[in-house]
Amino acid sequence: MDEPRPTPEDKFSFGLWTVGWPARDPFGDATRPPLDPVEAVHRLAELGAWGVTFHDDDLVPFGSDGDQRERHIKRFREALEATGLVVPMATTNTFTHPVFRDGAFTANDRDVRRYAVRKIMRKLGAASYVFWGGREGAETDAAKDVRVALDRYKEGLDLLCQYVLDRGYGLRFAVEPKPNEPRGDILLPTVGHALAFIGSLEHSEMVGLNPEVGHEQMAGLNFVHGIAQALWHGKLFHIDLNGQHGPKYDQDLVFGHGDVKSAFFLVDLLEHGGYEGPRHFDFKPPRTEDPDDVWVSAAANMRTYLLLKQRAAAFRADPEVQAAMAAARVPELAVPTLAEGERWSDLLADRGAFEDFDVEAAGRRGMHYAALDQLAIEHLLGARS
Amino acid sequence: MDEPRPTPEDKFSFGLWTVGWPARDPFGDATRPPLDPVEAVHRLAELGAWGVTFHDDDLVPFGSDGDQRERHIKRFREALEATGLVVPMATTNTFTHPVFRDGAFTANDRDVRRYAVRKIMRKLGAASYVFWGGREGAETDAAKDVRVALDRYKEGLDLLCQYVLDRGYGLRFAVEPKPNEPRGDILLPTVGHALAFIGSLEHSEMVGLNPEVGHEQMAGLNFVHGIAQALWHGKLFHIDLNGQHGPKYDQDLVFGHGDVKSAFFLVDLLEHGGYEGPRHFDFKPPRTEDPDDVWVSAAANMRTYLLLKQRAAAFRADPEVQAAMAAARVPELAVPTLAEGERWSDLLADRGAFEDFDVEAAGRRGMHYAALDQLAIEHLLGARS
Amino acid sequence: MDEPRPTPEDKFSFGLWTVGWPARDPFGDATRPPLDPVEAVHRLAELGAWGVTFHDDDLVPFGSDGDQRERHIKRFREALEATGLVVPMATTNTFTHPVFRDGAFTANDRDVRRYAVRKIMRKLGAASYVFWGGREGAETDAAKDVRVALDRYKEGLDLLCQYVLDRGYGLRFAVEPKPNEPRGDILLPTVGHALAFIGSLEHSEMVGLNPEVGHEQMAGLNFVHGIAQALWHGKLFHIDLNGQHGPKYDQDLVFGHGDVKSAFFLVDLLEHGGYEGPRHFDFKPPRTEDPDDVWVSAAANMRTYLLLKQRAAAFRADPEVQAAMAAARVPELAVPTLAEGERWSDLLADRGAFEDFDVEAAGRRGMHYAALDQLAIEHLLGARS
Amino acid sequence: MDEPRPTPEDKFSFGLWTVGWPARDPFGDATRPPLDPVEAVHRLAELGAWGVTFHDDDLVPFGSDGDQRERHIKRFREALEATGLVVPMATTNTFTHPVFRDGAFTANDRDVRRYAVRKIMRKLGAASYVFWGGREGAETDAAKDVRVALDRYKEGLDLLCQYVLDRGYGLRFAVEPKPNEPRGDILLPTVGHALAFIGSLEHSEMVGLNPEVGHEQMAGLNFVHGIAQALWHGKLFHIDLNGQHGPKYDQDLVFGHGDVKSAFFLVDLLEHGGYEGPRHFDFKPPRTEDPDDVWVSAAANMRTYLLLKQRAAAFRADPEVQAAMAAARVPELAVPTLAEGERWSDLLADRGAFEDFDVEAAGRRGMHYAALDQLAIEHLLGARS
Repeated sequence: MDEPRPTPEDKFSFGLWTVGWPARDPFGDATRPPLDPVEAVHRLAELGAWGVTFHDDDLVPFGSDGDQRERHIKRFREALEATGLVVPMATTNTFTHPVFRDGAFTANDRDVRRYAVRKIMRKLGAASYVFWGGREGAETDAAKDVRVALDRYKEGLDLLCQYVLDRGYGLRFAVEPKPNEPRGDILLPTVGHALAFIGSLEHSEMVGLNPEVGHEQMAGLNFVHGIAQALWHGKLFHIDLNGQHGPKYDQDLVFGHGDVKSAFFLVDLLEHGGYEGPRHFDFKPPRTEDPDDVWVSAAANMRTYLLLKQRAAAFRADPEVQAAMAAARVPELAVPTLAEGERWSDLLADRGAFEDFDVEAAGRRGMHYAALDQLAIEHLLGARS
Repeated sequence: MDEPRPTPEDKFSFGLWTVGWPARDPFGDATRPPLDPVEAVHRLAELGAWGVTFHDDDLVPFGSDGDQRERHIKRFREALEATGLVVPMATTNTFTHPVFRDGAFTANDRDVRRYAVRKIMRKLGAASYVFWGGREGAETDAAKDVRVALDRYKEGLDLLCQYVLDRGYGLRFAVEPKPNEPRGDILLPTVGHALAFIGSLEHSEMVGLNPEVGHEQMAGLNFVHGIAQALWHGKLFHIDLNGQHGPKYDQDLVFGHGDVKSAFFLVDLLEHGGYEGPRHFDFKPPRTEDPDDVWVSAAANMRTYLLLKQRAAAFRADPEVQAAMAAARVPELAVPTLAEGERWSDLLADRGAFEDFDVEAAGRRGMHYAALDQLAIEHLLGARS
Repeated sequence: MDEPRPTPEDKFSFGLWTVGWPARDPFGDATRPPLDPVEAVHRLAELGAWGVTFHDDDLVPFGSDGDQRERHIKRFREALEATGLVVPMATTNTFTHPVFRDGAFTANDRDVRRYAVRKIMRKLGAASYVFWGGREGAETDAAKDVRVALDRYKEGLDLLCQYVLDRGYGLRFAVEPKPNEPRGDILLPTVGHALAFIGSLEHSEMVGLNPEVGHEQMAGLNFVHGIAQALWHGKLFHIDLNGQHGPKYDQDLVFGHGDVKSAFFLVDLLEHGGYEGPRHFDFKPPRTEDPDDVWVSAAANMRTYLLLKQRAAAFRADPEVQAAMAAARVPELAVPTLAEGERWSDLLADRGAFEDFDVEAAGRRGMHYAALDQLAIEHLLGARS
Repeated sequence: MDEPRPTPEDKFSFGLWTVGWPARDPFGDATRPPLDPVEAVHRLAELGAWGVTFHDDDLVPFGSDGDQRERHIKRFREALEATGLVVPMATTNTFTHPVFRDGAFTANDRDVRRYAVRKIMRKLGAASYVFWGGREGAETDAAKDVRVALDRYKEGLDLLCQYVLDRGYGLRFAVEPKPNEPRGDILLPTVGHALAFIGSLEHSEMVGLNPEVGHEQMAGLNFVHGIAQALWHGKLFHIDLNGQHGPKYDQDLVFGHGDVKSAFFLVDLLEHGGYEGPRHFDFKPPRTEDPDDVWVSAAANMRTYLLLKQRAAAFRADPEVQAAMAAARVPELAVPTLAEGERWSDLLADRGAFEDFDVEAAGRRGMHYAALDQLAIEHLLGARS
């Protein structure tokens, strides 16, 4: 098997806030100095990344004046040009400043909502845009009428969609669900809740999802199932890859360093399921690490992805796997339940479907999933390639 | 405060499988004998219940012949007439028999899917109908292409909706989400995933939700938020009330015996949020209990609901609570972010919204939620009534 | 029922770091200015608190010189004298500074371990001393040989115990378990693991526990059971009271604002189970709140405790509860399994115990726990007082 | 790399109740017929297993008379002799029958406790003996005084130890912790709680642990850490290997089919940490599977263990891993914090340890764990062998 090396064709991207995280946590001070975004661009390019993303405040510190703003942007643009890195996604920080303590779109305070919408409008351009509503939520059910909050959430997104349409930006929005942290409960806590909400929007065709591995796993949910449902609805606009060890604080581990079996099936689905967007890593280099270690951990994300991609391809290509899939009747699920042209009345008239169906015999059939699951494990472990 | 007693006006209903659970669990044999459904009807009526619900196999044992079936139904109907209990909901068991080991709508085996649809069609009548797809899922991601499974799920529900429409049954379906158990991962794991899926159906107006307290809490999700979102989408068709202590096995405790603060806010929302359907208890009398204890635990569900209803009403009526709500700007969230007739261009032109907005001053405002939360706790504890 | 008001007899204490938390979280900047420890002492005294606790760095900022140190301590001592507040516990911060990124007692770096022990030695005086080893842990199992880490942990505590003995300080240590956050996994993750570890120490009689409500509930464990086991081992030296909603990030909610039913049984156990130490609140005023709200939330802890204490007393005194306890044979558990003087050979010879025991009849006995649990809920709701 | 095949030297053992599980779950009927224990012995031997274990009732159905009992035992003994399989552990079922609904050692009913002790005494012989107190617990904190329950638990184990000593059986007990299911909360919920409890026993040297992968992971705890602590206390007497996906119902997946990265580190620890006991699989062949699939899943446990053992050996042998361990100062943790002969007074006098320690410089040191963790992942994936 070839040694995999990341190239721009892999569409790997990183947030500036990931490699640039100074490693302050709720119980500890920063262990790393600030990272110059220009250095981040150069280092990521050297490692084989394709894109870089950022919140407005990552690039231009909150409160900068016009001149400072220009200088920051100019230097950054030059670094992009020098390295060929693209900016496939942008986002706005509506969670760090105290003014957003109760949310942005759904803050009880109307002036805060208006300010938040304006802060977002300023950032909108030609890229795709992620919205993580990390402060849209509550610690007590007394504080927020969730139905009314969803009205405001919808109002905010409808307004922004109209703005983008009227301006002709050709932009798509991606909502990022998360169940909790930093709020006790966050609105639109899972892939499912966000999908349902999006369906209610004025221009739902412009809005999709940016699911994150760890966010679904914080609720004990199967991330691969969530991504499959998002794809089924045509709503996987972007994805945040990282690692997590189940329901606990948001860990943002290196991709694959949490539940690596789930990561294997995720890569399999992304590579074979028609997703063509960025493979965006939203991880945190552990607080134990120094500035050089940051790049070791950044590279680990891409390398693990590529190793899993090799293994998933070998899994799909293995004739024994294909036989086990057939034995488990996996392909039969693609055959509609009704025959072509069949209606309910035909089904009702089919005695073989019910009256003459030998339910006891059918009840004895095994699914042979254990064999299939073991084949997957052995491909994951590189034991069959 | 008056001593609350359940009456039919409270619309309390119970599944036959709840009080009739013989208390067999994965590690233990049954501790109670089978319960005659006719006795269940009489005992529930005496306790003040309004309705009773059942799976097809609860009333007529699986495999009964036509005569036996008739006898079972006749006795049951007589008990209903004698007591005045109604049957506000019905459902079909597509999870107990081995034939459903891999699901009903989404079994890999097509003949099992056809059989399942027919078993459901047989049961459909004039009531509302709940579908819990407890076996629609997988233990390994290799076993099931979730996107294809959702195709089959949709096909099954579309077919049943068409059948109901063509027959003129006037029936509504309610999908019951659950994250896991008995499958490792169940499709449509939360209120959100099910809402999104419903939006994709041919006749989505006929299909809503039957959320269950414990099912959402098994994923660590806020049930009150989930119900609020379901109401917001107009999809709360039915509800299953019980108790759970967070992410662990499905406990089906008495309502209020798990997270009682959440139960308080839930009752508040149901009573003030426009829900007019049954208050359906889907609990299990603990395995420690004997046949008489079953009725103690059944009564406990209703009594706890009524006590919480009293406390929620007192909370809403308390002038100090109303003042605390105002201080927390809870009512302000109902004021749209844009003024009447305002468009994005107006907002963009409003310097007060952004350029002249004193973000630092606004960032110092407190939300005063602690006072509000404490008032809720004190009403819950009956300390302010 | 009388309106409860906190008094020094209630032994309520607060950490300076609780009311003084500036509300910086992993995703947001501080929303409140620093709080002067002297103001904290005065405000807590006015609210009825009895004690105040602190880490070394809470009172004297890390890196202060000798003069600054003196001034800080002098002002604080004067506030204590003016208010009568006591300092029943002290602790050392071995987690905030980057030097402790990999732990204190169990850092791989030996010089860091030596520094940590010295930092702790400096703080030891006449009070009881809590040790929270929040950085003793790992994100990857490759990073730390846990057996060797426990050797070092034991070495550190043995050394400190010897120091305290030799100095004649009359001091006791209390270890505070936590499963994770800020480390991926923390050593001694639960009450149980810490109890077992303490049993291995040279002077285990000097070392007990400081369990925290939320820390056990982050692992889905029953806190009341944990406290009961700690009491059973004679090791409940101190306690941290707060609230949490199950497995997620560390919430540090107001006491009783998480699982209030568990809080009811906890207060019942503390009040009737022989614990005479401080009722120490280790909570965080929510980040949504302003400096005045801080004191509202501080007061809420004490008031909720007192309301629960009233309800627990009424529960124990209620004749109906006592009858339900008897029906559930709760008192019978206190009767030893063997009769006085009985040995295994006597039990073996007792045919009534086995050969003639009617196991089927005994298997039909109900425990009547549902009635008891409902009585507890009704006392909690203030519905029977 | 050689293809690994299980041999008796690997000490793989299985419970009769694992391969013999008829696949009845809380929501479904059995999907497989009963398995003859004699067939189980032969099939396991063919697959390369070394031992078989059982509860009393697995081999001899509850309530069998003396003759039946003899016949069952005779046939089973013959199968053992024919195959060479050993019985390295035995256990007693004190959880299935309704009589144990409230526990065995800690049932409120004294006669049930006496019966349980007698049922266990009957089974004790020359093997090691596991006690899983699956019914020792409660659903409500009102039902059980945990301190008194621990008195009874201790009384029961003290009695059994004395019995074994007096009889000269040379037997050791292993307690199996579990946090919940089938009880709402089980006593001794984790490795830690059980270790602490064991320390309080009259003959604690005779009692150790039988930890199970899934049981600790149901509480979100790091199983490798738990096993390391058990080894540190000299208490790893037996181990139950299987798989689990975090906090949810007890899944009993094939070993390695849950968190496979944790399984890798577990095998590494067992193989290099001095554990010489059985590698006992306590898994359930999924309910989807038929009788032939049972053996596929049984074999998968052993094969996955052996693959992980190969990878762990390669990880330890890799010079790059050894260099990364050194860079992360993992070996330095084995160096005591005090020098040989050093006392606290020497440490106090060492200005280099504190006064002259450059804490800021030390705070900048990185731990280089990311590199080490990535090497572990790559060995797990078979990408470096």
